[in-house]
Amino acid sequence: MLLIENASAIYTMSEQGDPLGAVPNGEVICDGASVRWVGVKAERPADLMITETVDAQGGCVLPGLIDSHTHLPFAGDRAEEFALRARGATYAEIMQAGGGILTTVKAVRGAPAEELAQRTAAELDLMLARGVTTVEGKSGYGLSTPSELKCLEVHRQLQETHAVDVCSTFLGAHALPPEFANDLDGYTDHVVQEMLPAVAEQGVATACDVFVEQGAFTPAHGRKILRAAKDLNLAIKVHAEQLSHSGGARLAAEMDALSVGHAEYVTDDDLKHLAEANVVCEVLATAQVFLNSPKAIPGARMRQAGVRMAVATDFNPGSAYASDLHLAAGLAVTQCGLNAEEALLGITARAAAALGLDDRGVLRPGKLADCVILRSPTPFDLLYRWSHNPVARVIKRGRPV
Amino acid sequence: MLLIENASAIYTMSEQGDPLGAVPNGEVICDGASVRWVGVKAERPADLMITETVDAQGGCVLPGLIDSHTHLPFAGDRAEEFALRARGATYAEIMQAGGGILTTVKAVRGAPAEELAQRTAAELDLMLARGVTTVEGKSGYGLSTPSELKCLEVHRQLQETHAVDVCSTFLGAHALPPEFANDLDGYTDHVVQEMLPAVAEQGVATACDVFVEQGAFTPAHGRKILRAAKDLNLAIKVHAEQLSHSGGARLAAEMDALSVGHAEYVTDDDLKHLAEANVVCEVLATAQVFLNSPKAIPGARMRQAGVRMAVATDFNPGSAYASDLHLAAGLAVTQCGLNAEEALLGITARAAAALGLDDRGVLRPGKLADCVILRSPTPFDLLYRWSHNPVARVIKRGRPV
Repeated sequence: MLLIENASAIYTMSEQGDPLGAVPNGEVICDGASVRWVGVKAERPADLMITETVDAQGGCVLPGLIDSHTHLPFAGDRAEEFALRARGATYAEIMQAGGGILTTVKAVRGAPAEELAQRTAAELDLMLARGVTTVEGKSGYGLSTPSELKCLEVHRQLQETHAVDVCSTFLGAHALPPEFANDLDGYTDHVVQEMLPAVAEQGVATACDVFVEQGAFTPAHGRKILRAAKDLNLAIKVHAEQLSHSGGARLAAEMDALSVGHAEYVTDDDLKHLAEANVVCEVLATAQVFLNSPKAIPGARMRQAGVRMAVATDFNPGSAYASDLHLAAGLAVTQCGLNAEEALLGITARAAAALGLDDRGVLRPGKLADCVILRSPTPFDLLYRWSHNPVARVIKRGRPV
Repeated sequence: MLLIENASAIYTMSEQGDPLGAVPNGEVICDGASVRWVGVKAERPADLMITETVDAQGGCVLPGLIDSHTHLPFAGDRAEEFALRARGATYAEIMQAGGGILTTVKAVRGAPAEELAQRTAAELDLMLARGVTTVEGKSGYGLSTPSELKCLEVHRQLQETHAVDVCSTFLGAHALPPEFANDLDGYTDHVVQEMLPAVAEQGVATACDVFVEQGAFTPAHGRKILRAAKDLNLAIKVHAEQLSHSGGARLAAEMDALSVGHAEYVTDDDLKHLAEANVVCEVLATAQVFLNSPKAIPGARMRQAGVRMAVATDFNPGSAYASDLHLAAGLAVTQCGLNAEEALLGITARAAAALGLDDRGVLRPGKLADCVILRSPTPFDLLYRWSHNPVARVIKRGRPV
């Protein structure tokens, strides 16, 4: 068994005792891919045979970080669009002019699966170096059955070959493809009748997501797609209330979604329904800042409503070109009103909840032995110093990587 | 002589032709520490003897980046204060309660010069890796004559030993030290009568800065200090209009300052005076975001007023704990309304102007041969992808580092 010793504290995120479940001067013992024991040295069970030790050197230990919302895989870049927005064009205007998401769709359709997998693996390497051991990826830049399946297949392949666990979400309802320009009904039927059955048959996704927004999908169209997804036993996620109030949050509550992403324009009434339905709000602070949203994601109102908050990067080449989950969490504090503890729970325990995973995100016996060791004795360093990586070591499924 | 070849373009920042002075498919020849020639291969002068080549591999070349406003050196950290602010305390409240700057003052006073120099050198290493070849540092965490001189001496030592050029600014008027609590007049006299003459005698600073703000220095006290500094042939800089409208911008214009930093609360009338006096505005976007300022630094209004804009990190452990100049420039675009070209000029040519340096910030014959080569053919990548370093190579004073 592997022992992590000499830690300032183990932040178990199990919400026992202090908000971060801290075990000061604690140790972790991993048995194969699972956590066997967390506690202080004096209480370490004598019958556990330690065969390997990792020295935390006074740093603190957290569960492996979880990024519950990214748009990997993608191809191409949108630097030109960034410069256009810098001259005053809005994200919605660029999207309406056929730029935005469709620029990436063109690049993804043209990219071989192998190229997508290579680029995504390189991104996962960078994320892993920052302590991220589970990443959700979405399709949604294919928007045709073969291209969507190609992207979901990249997830499957990386899940098999990369140290980072990849959770796959089908987001065929991300935007209207050129083939269905101005035909929301037609594309919705296409998603329901052709894409979703193909995705389910291949078994390449565990969740279905819909972008409910003006210019994207209405709640009625989203409902149709999500109902079909539920019938195929896929979990539900919704992009909601990002650029306007469009009804996505209520739809998510109605459909018992795992999570809603964004939520800048969410109302208190929406939040009441999200809390009742136990939907996790994904605070995507990087996108808020990248697009300079006139509305901030309302962390304080989410807290008051009793809504659980995850924090994710929303990593994508258009509206959040930063895979740094630490920065996302720091911005969630400074821009969205999360406190430091909420931000740390947001990239661990609450992120697991946003993915419907109960085997990770906390360091408790029986959970996955995904751990990150910081150079610093305080986990706040993850949030406080931007664009700087305080991660010393990462353990994935019980193995140092 | 050293030749940089195979570049997508040389962005000379000389404001000839396009806004970034681009020479597509250009080359740079460095002769010792200076640029000898910039142009396309076909026009390369035959009499220049190339002894060394650097292959840009299709990336673009910019002048070495310049960070015109940091608070290096410092000691300690303020993660606890970050968590306090996350629970709702304001920066001004923390400062008034004796936290904030004074926390760092305590740490800096207690730190030996050698420790300050080592930590600062490590920070400069990280900045250099991002293509930053000139960094301004300020004292202002000593607030006693010996401690201020200690910090300025660190600048001098690093200027001699580190590849990055360090410009030293005296900021004795950063906050009131405990010894002069509630005695603004007394400390101002102390700065004028004791500190400034000592700084001038040692020749360890080229500029004097003042923090004009409620709770810090009034324009009248700032004027007294800056007049004394001018009499000692120091250049002038001002921290102005960051947390409230306090009159610092008008003082900067009146005193012919090189620059004002921050300026969230600057008025159009202020901007008119700054433009007339040719004062550079330092857009410190990281601090704006880090403190979640209710007011954005008004890039569009600065442009309209004809004010030149630099972009700097404001790197410090309290209000901008990020030394990433690329991120600062990206945030200046998304949060402060600079266009992409202005942001790139802001970390090169305009940053040199903010420091009163006319030997760098542009790639023209006779200027310093400080160059940065990106992996990308477009310089917009510096702004567009956050928390990710696109720098391939750095040349400092004609030497690859």
